[in-house]
Amino acid sequence: MEKAIQQAHQPAVQLYLDDLYVGQRFTSGTYVMEAARIKEFAAEFDPQPFHLDEAAARMSLFKGLVASGWHTAAVAMRLLVTGGLPFANGIVGFGGQLSWPRPTRPGDILRVESEIVEITPSRSKPHQAGAKFDCRFQTVFSPGRCSRASARSMSRWIRRKA
Amino acid sequence: MEKAIQQAHQPAVQLYLDDLYVGQRFTSGTYVMEAARIKEFAAEFDPQPFHLDEAAARMSLFKGLVASGWHTAAVAMRLLVTGGLPFANGIVGFGGQLSWPRPTRPGDILRVESEIVEITPSRSKPHQAGAKFDCRFQTVFSPGRCSRASARSMSRWIRRKA
Repeated sequence: MEKAIQQAHQPAVQLYLDDLYVGQRFTSGTYVMEAARIKEFAAEFDPQPFHLDEAAARMSLFKGLVASGWHTAAVAMRLLVTGGLPFANGIVGFGGQLSWPRPTRPGDILRVESEIVEITPSRSKPHQAGAKFDCRFQTVFSPGRCSRASARSMSRWIRRKA
Repeated sequence: MEKAIQQAHQPAVQLYLDDLYVGQRFTSGTYVMEAARIKEFAAEFDPQPFHLDEAAARMSLFKGLVASGWHTAAVAMRLLVTGGLPFANGIVGFGGQLSWPRPTRPGDILRVESEIVEITPSRSKPHQAGAKFDCRFQTVFSPGRCSRASARSMSRWIRRKA
């Protein structure tokens, strides 16, 4: 891919089910939302004026360019997979709740903080468990605005050490 | 964008709040999930082996390449915005429930069916209302497999005719 893919935060540890506990917290690396990528993502997946063009966006309810919520969600996944949730067998989601209380704008620097809120062993596969996380998508830097946060929680599937 | 962006299904009508009712149903156009785009999306947003490489994916719990759930979700948004929910003022989401009961694979042809399940007028803005939708992401064609479906529901913000 020619596209500028931002430097991934590489996890130092690889965690297994045995290493996890309710209340455990994780912090991801950061990601800069860039105007060009916001527009490009939107052209492909969410072609609405307030995601595509600054002038049109200023006339919208957002009063300026904002990222598609699906772009923000995809960036959250990137931050989780590249160190935000350092699970040895990867992160496989079933689904969950998602909310976008505030829009993400060009120049925002994002980070995901997660906390394990539930671990439910699999009935059929003793080496596996479902883990439920609360993930909070933080804006650690937002040019000209206060810092903002949005929350989402997702259920994930994790394995015991083999 | 050089990337092959698939032909959008253009809506024939533009609906306002006054045109909507609970139980109203919508069907989007279709979208073909392509292996190259699955891998490219994953490289940027969900770099896990089962989304990136056929050989690694065959060794995974998916037994083959699967799209990132966030890729599938983004495609659903594209299908909604390009005719699946033909709202005159666009589609702005607050959040909702999301589930991925089954993975999406290369060659799958996807479509979104939606139904309005709730319309809640805004207290402060009489020309606006929140509408809740159940959206079902259907696989209308899946090479070598049965047709599959997954569901998600999202709340959307809509306006009355100006």
